[in-house]
Amino acid sequence: MLTDLDLEALWRYRSTYSKPADFDSFWDATLAEARSFALDVEAVPVDTPLRTLDVHDVSFAGFGGDRIRAWLRTPRGASGLPAVVQYHGYGGNRGSAVENLTWASAGFAHLQVEVRDQRGGTGFMTRGIADPATYFYRRVYVDAVRAVEAVRALGSADVAVIGNSQGGGVALAVAGLVPDLAAVHAQAPFLCDFRRALNVCGRPPFTELTTYLAENRRADVFPALSYFDGVGFAGRAMAPAWFSIGLMDDIVPPSTVFGAYHAYAGPKEISVWQHSAHEAGGSDDLDIALDAFRSRLFQEKP
Amino acid sequence: MLTDLDLEALWRYRSTYSKPADFDSFWDATLAEARSFALDVEAVPVDTPLRTLDVHDVSFAGFGGDRIRAWLRTPRGASGLPAVVQYHGYGGNRGSAVENLTWASAGFAHLQVEVRDQRGGTGFMTRGIADPATYFYRRVYVDAVRAVEAVRALGSADVAVIGNSQGGGVALAVAGLVPDLAAVHAQAPFLCDFRRALNVCGRPPFTELTTYLAENRRADVFPALSYFDGVGFAGRAMAPAWFSIGLMDDIVPPSTVFGAYHAYAGPKEISVWQHSAHEAGGSDDLDIALDAFRSRLFQEKP
Amino acid sequence: MLTDLDLEALWRYRSTYSKPADFDSFWDATLAEARSFALDVEAVPVDTPLRTLDVHDVSFAGFGGDRIRAWLRTPRGASGLPAVVQYHGYGGNRGSAVENLTWASAGFAHLQVEVRDQRGGTGFMTRGIADPATYFYRRVYVDAVRAVEAVRALGSADVAVIGNSQGGGVALAVAGLVPDLAAVHAQAPFLCDFRRALNVCGRPPFTELTTYLAENRRADVFPALSYFDGVGFAGRAMAPAWFSIGLMDDIVPPSTVFGAYHAYAGPKEISVWQHSAHEAGGSDDLDIALDAFRSRLFQEKP
Amino acid sequence: MLTDLDLEALWRYRSTYSKPADFDSFWDATLAEARSFALDVEAVPVDTPLRTLDVHDVSFAGFGGDRIRAWLRTPRGASGLPAVVQYHGYGGNRGSAVENLTWASAGFAHLQVEVRDQRGGTGFMTRGIADPATYFYRRVYVDAVRAVEAVRALGSADVAVIGNSQGGGVALAVAGLVPDLAAVHAQAPFLCDFRRALNVCGRPPFTELTTYLAENRRADVFPALSYFDGVGFAGRAMAPAWFSIGLMDDIVPPSTVFGAYHAYAGPKEISVWQHSAHEAGGSDDLDIALDAFRSRLFQEKP
Amino acid sequence: MLTDLDLEALWRYRSTYSKPADFDSFWDATLAEARSFALDVEAVPVDTPLRTLDVHDVSFAGFGGDRIRAWLRTPRGASGLPAVVQYHGYGGNRGSAVENLTWASAGFAHLQVEVRDQRGGTGFMTRGIADPATYFYRRVYVDAVRAVEAVRALGSADVAVIGNSQGGGVALAVAGLVPDLAAVHAQAPFLCDFRRALNVCGRPPFTELTTYLAENRRADVFPALSYFDGVGFAGRAMAPAWFSIGLMDDIVPPSTVFGAYHAYAGPKEISVWQHSAHEAGGSDDLDIALDAFRSRLFQEKP
Amino acid sequence: MLTDLDLEALWRYRSTYSKPADFDSFWDATLAEARSFALDVEAVPVDTPLRTLDVHDVSFAGFGGDRIRAWLRTPRGASGLPAVVQYHGYGGNRGSAVENLTWASAGFAHLQVEVRDQRGGTGFMTRGIADPATYFYRRVYVDAVRAVEAVRALGSADVAVIGNSQGGGVALAVAGLVPDLAAVHAQAPFLCDFRRALNVCGRPPFTELTTYLAENRRADVFPALSYFDGVGFAGRAMAPAWFSIGLMDDIVPPSTVFGAYHAYAGPKEISVWQHSAHEAGGSDDLDIALDAFRSRLFQEKP
Repeated sequence: MLTDLDLEALWRYRSTYSKPADFDSFWDATLAEARSFALDVEAVPVDTPLRTLDVHDVSFAGFGGDRIRAWLRTPRGASGLPAVVQYHGYGGNRGSAVENLTWASAGFAHLQVEVRDQRGGTGFMTRGIADPATYFYRRVYVDAVRAVEAVRALGSADVAVIGNSQGGGVALAVAGLVPDLAAVHAQAPFLCDFRRALNVCGRPPFTELTTYLAENRRADVFPALSYFDGVGFAGRAMAPAWFSIGLMDDIVPPSTVFGAYHAYAGPKEISVWQHSAHEAGGSDDLDIALDAFRSRLFQEKP
Repeated sequence: MLTDLDLEALWRYRSTYSKPADFDSFWDATLAEARSFALDVEAVPVDTPLRTLDVHDVSFAGFGGDRIRAWLRTPRGASGLPAVVQYHGYGGNRGSAVENLTWASAGFAHLQVEVRDQRGGTGFMTRGIADPATYFYRRVYVDAVRAVEAVRALGSADVAVIGNSQGGGVALAVAGLVPDLAAVHAQAPFLCDFRRALNVCGRPPFTELTTYLAENRRADVFPALSYFDGVGFAGRAMAPAWFSIGLMDDIVPPSTVFGAYHAYAGPKEISVWQHSAHEAGGSDDLDIALDAFRSRLFQEKP
Repeated sequence: MLTDLDLEALWRYRSTYSKPADFDSFWDATLAEARSFALDVEAVPVDTPLRTLDVHDVSFAGFGGDRIRAWLRTPRGASGLPAVVQYHGYGGNRGSAVENLTWASAGFAHLQVEVRDQRGGTGFMTRGIADPATYFYRRVYVDAVRAVEAVRALGSADVAVIGNSQGGGVALAVAGLVPDLAAVHAQAPFLCDFRRALNVCGRPPFTELTTYLAENRRADVFPALSYFDGVGFAGRAMAPAWFSIGLMDDIVPPSTVFGAYHAYAGPKEISVWQHSAHEAGGSDDLDIALDAFRSRLFQEKP
Repeated sequence: MLTDLDLEALWRYRSTYSKPADFDSFWDATLAEARSFALDVEAVPVDTPLRTLDVHDVSFAGFGGDRIRAWLRTPRGASGLPAVVQYHGYGGNRGSAVENLTWASAGFAHLQVEVRDQRGGTGFMTRGIADPATYFYRRVYVDAVRAVEAVRALGSADVAVIGNSQGGGVALAVAGLVPDLAAVHAQAPFLCDFRRALNVCGRPPFTELTTYLAENRRADVFPALSYFDGVGFAGRAMAPAWFSIGLMDDIVPPSTVFGAYHAYAGPKEISVWQHSAHEAGGSDDLDIALDAFRSRLFQEKP
Repeated sequence: MLTDLDLEALWRYRSTYSKPADFDSFWDATLAEARSFALDVEAVPVDTPLRTLDVHDVSFAGFGGDRIRAWLRTPRGASGLPAVVQYHGYGGNRGSAVENLTWASAGFAHLQVEVRDQRGGTGFMTRGIADPATYFYRRVYVDAVRAVEAVRALGSADVAVIGNSQGGGVALAVAGLVPDLAAVHAQAPFLCDFRRALNVCGRPPFTELTTYLAENRRADVFPALSYFDGVGFAGRAMAPAWFSIGLMDDIVPPSTVFGAYHAYAGPKEISVWQHSAHEAGGSDDLDIALDAFRSRLFQEKP
Repeated sequence: MLTDLDLEALWRYRSTYSKPADFDSFWDATLAEARSFALDVEAVPVDTPLRTLDVHDVSFAGFGGDRIRAWLRTPRGASGLPAVVQYHGYGGNRGSAVENLTWASAGFAHLQVEVRDQRGGTGFMTRGIADPATYFYRRVYVDAVRAVEAVRALGSADVAVIGNSQGGGVALAVAGLVPDLAAVHAQAPFLCDFRRALNVCGRPPFTELTTYLAENRRADVFPALSYFDGVGFAGRAMAPAWFSIGLMDDIVPPSTVFGAYHAYAGPKEISVWQHSAHEAGGSDDLDIALDAFRSRLFQEKP
């Protein structure tokens, strides 16, 4: 069953989000502070059974100089390739070094970044929420921007970003913070249009915020969240973007994705999967991203 | 929480399954009948964005001569490689041509076989259950054996089989029906120890049988099922096998996997993941399988 | 709680269903093909403890000539009575020979037909759905039409059809396919207004279609389903019809029933049970059907 | 899945219930008090569409002289037949006059009794529980005994009692309170072995007691309940009895039924349905009861 | 997630409730009848470990003269204080003598009244519902009015009433029945706007009515309920009132509270807690009530 | 229903927990480090509507010198009273200043301590779990010990500790870390016997650990947890202790509480509430604690 508005209403829907006056300066200052730490990229070859690809265990300085880890996968012996930077879903991790091989096998440098601290945990939606300066996602978004810088430092000039769920939300944030991305793919992106999300969504992780507010009845977290809302980043983003969403998604309400989509400033498309839940278009979304990114980054015709 | 016996009890547990007297002749006759159809392997190159791998859309004659489909993935330009034949989970399909690239990237010919008719459906546990001759899984197991024959026809002499859940059950069946496999990996294998499973398991797909029996109170499906039980095939299998199971699996009860494991006639190991549900060891199981298969099929040291 | 629109909105609601151009010819051809098999009705007396009624185990040639089974119950020694043909719910069967005695005790010949293969199973919503020609319900609807022919062959000229849930959907199909029925009663009829149903309903069996479409994202089953939608049959049906629905039905959304009701071409009434779930009016619906059918078929005043 | 002990353990299981010393005198006094009211049976013919059966709306004086209602169904024009008195499930009612026709159609006088006040309600498990004298089921059991007296007053000398769930529990109580019954059938009988039930069962209505005790932590309801436990009545019952139970019943734990079964003093059988939930043997149980009662009450050979 | 209308719609919402013509005379007669029993207040000192407060076990004659119990808590040695009479939630009780000490510690006489019979039980929503004269809540509301009279008899001239959930509904009823209350606080008040409630709410206790109506399809309980609906009492109430509600309350739908709020005849405020479920404002509501009642009853400035 | 072993088995059960060799030195060092920060107790009077009690907003230096907050409630004008230090449940907070007044009203100084960071959050079970030194509960237990020191600094020589759920677990830790407590009450104490808990419990917060381990399959958190297990602290504790547990608790498995109880080194009692869930004895436990603490700390006879 539909979990939110029907498609016609989604095309008409606009988020009530409004960007705080100092949104841009907040992020300028945040990134400047992050860049006060040397990026210090390390890439250590990983001994894997793979014969067609190289894998490097990459680390670099994220927010506060903390080490952030990622896998870099490339076709064996290749370098200087266009890159795809991928962010993962809530509570996840960068996964196994020897899985998720499509992008590298398709000729991209594929940097799969790990969100700090999340591996199997929970409670991140409210960590440090009392102040934008201490909010967990301030760190995550900075780490994500630094990942783009890291893959460039490793030789990839052209960079696209992708992600599913939380990863899609992070990709949108990066799209708003990094001016010269080649392309963006956000599959069922989380972290958009928080006010709407809490009114519509009855499942974690959005409900971590609901639970927090029910216990902190006089707290107003929305001012703080307004610095981290995908709708805000969308309004700054200029790279061509592909969104996707399932209309039966009960984790990321479709209206919140349309909220970001309608606000997106750059060229954009959205794939609507009428009977999908949070998996959205699954491998069909991957096919769309591959086609889009190949024509953008390789000038290949799909 | 544990969904079944604790580990100590699992090591002591033995299935009550007993093989019907004509189990072997039933399968000899079944396979002979299937082989009365020419295997007729076709392998059509697929145009994908992958640069390091070749993908072929393979089809061959399964049970009753019906066309069965599979993806064959190989390192670009390679041939004659040892093969890994993979079977998928209940209600699934062979997936996207450009995902699941680990085995081929690691130097194997990787044949990912599609179970007939399942894609997004349900109700297969009881289809044709009135008679072993008409039972749905008779077809599936034959198709799976023919897939091994197909990959050999395409040039791979050494063949290992793997699968998760239903795929693991199918892999065990193939291990019992194909005498000269190089190795077997069965991750949380379904389709074992049916009597025990129905007593312990409260979730689909095992409960399709429970529902059926509740509606057909005087039916006794266990004689028919005894021709398709992984415990029976395990007793015939001689290839080295790696099992895995999560002790918090609520879809495949751990005792049913131990039922098959204890009965397994060949060399065997089992990875027990104490806090995993049906994902069992996930990518850790993949690492184990890669190590095992590389040392067996490539004489590589992990 | 209400599971769908409120009553006022239901009276205004109209389905978006539109009948395919060849709907009529599809069914003409289908029935012609079915009638190429001799009906071949058999009726074997059943030895029951009942003293007031006779029960026969009836079979006849359904779709493809397959044998379809039914119970025929009649007042002891009577013949040539008006008949009520009843279809059962999803996954059910014709039940016990000695239960469901109301219609026969009230003086009707009561033919209770069994849907092929369903007894305790699942997965029928998607079986053969790739093509209208192979869809499971093509067989079911033909079998149901042939059941009317069978009861006529056994001596009942006047025939009414009834059913609950799937049985109500089948009854509507028969109402659209058999021109000279005396009356129809459809209680919470399933199988109507599929597009709406999938958007509104979160429980099986409608969700078998949702799951299928989520796994087959590029499939469009609605063209095939349009040959089987109760809204389409309703537009062809001329017999007087009684519908019923509970406004708290979470298995058959009330709007889908109103979709069929509004489209129904013959004389019609609908009983709306404001606080009922899928049981709709239960025995109150039976009272309504008894009154309606007695006045129609016996010219009795209720 | 099994909801309680496995079958082997059920055969060994014995209830810890022990009968209070004054159990017999409590019930002697209770029945004597009830009989101080004239039974005052009324039977008003009901105008139904049924042609093969007569239906009477029966009422009589139950506990405290309150009017208790029942349907009496008999083959048209017959009288003086052996009777089957049936009690219904929790929260139910005597149902429609024109349904549930099997027993009358099979030649019995069928008295279907209504439990006072229950129709669609809840909370009966704890009503008046502070004292055996005020407990709701004291009234229910007396009403049930008076129903047997009523059907005798209407001309049936030989009487059997049946019931499902709460009705089965009531039937067992009547079996312990009426010395000369012809037979008893208790399908998944509720109201037995309360201590065990509360430890094992997590669903209503047994959990009404659990909730009550959780809110009244220092209350001890078991002394009061011991006057109403089916295990206690079973020890007094001498009529031949047929029990049934489903091993996957999550409403009436199988061990509580075996508790009563093992204690039953008369001749007894139990049908165990291995994969059934609370429906137990459904119509198969009805077939068993019909066979048993016909041979007992009609000397018919099944 | 929101469980009902959004806030803007709640401000516009008006209940369809209409007061029966004899509502006032029904309650006049009811109270007159109740007052035909002497109030007969008893207050027995309770020996508690509390050093700052006195606790009395109070009882008085409620409906039909039945003894109703309450705790009276007062600052040690004080008397003649303004009183707060509190009613508890569904299935609850007056609780421990030594908990819930805020009101008395703040200088009020605090009478915590017990709803008759409820302690850990269920099924009260439909008890006696066939007739307003026999309905359970007729007794409860009378008892509640008599509690105000009892606390006055014990020396408190000024009386405010409060309650949460069922207690809030009872407080509203008292506000409509007792003309000279000082103040009212109704937190997430239950028992308002029954028609709306049943359409929107899917959880007990409102669903006790839904279940009843589904089993009693031709019953119409709304005429009887219209004598007990908080919307009706609100229209008669003149004391200043504070309401509160959580917009994520799934037990008491916010629209039913707004139904009563909009109808409330006296001065009124409502606290809307956007992310709260049935706890509404919790201790924040208590703070609001303390401030309001102190300024009203003590002329203290908060 | 029981959620764990039955009572007889609970009396026999012993935890498999074993204390690490350096448990004592770990905690000695931890406390020494914490005490390197001056305790720096502040107590600011709070302006409340309470007339019988004083409330102070207390803060002091916890782990790492971080400020920890608490309410101190005392009878108006009193000082030097024996103190009860209370810890709250998971995700909670110190609550309202004007609620939870029993202990102070009974003549105790009542210090209600807030667990750092928890207010409405989640995910604490795994925060910092990679190393005992960084584990979240290291901080919590230190804060809790410091709270005892703070209340002593404020003039209470004799101190008892209490808590429910997480608060009970914290109280046990304090009992093991502070040698001269007067008494301990642990109601349904959480944080005991982790290995057992994860095998038995299927609900948060214990399942935060299960989820973490399922995502970190090769991690072994039990060595780290062994420094924080209530069973370990119980073995060091000498103050008289009162435990309580509900046998139907599905959040804290009864066996884990018995694991701690059996290990408890001091005088001990346990209240077993047979039909309670996580509320255990509720206000009955409070009565028990009041009686126990009054006789211990005031030499009052209950």
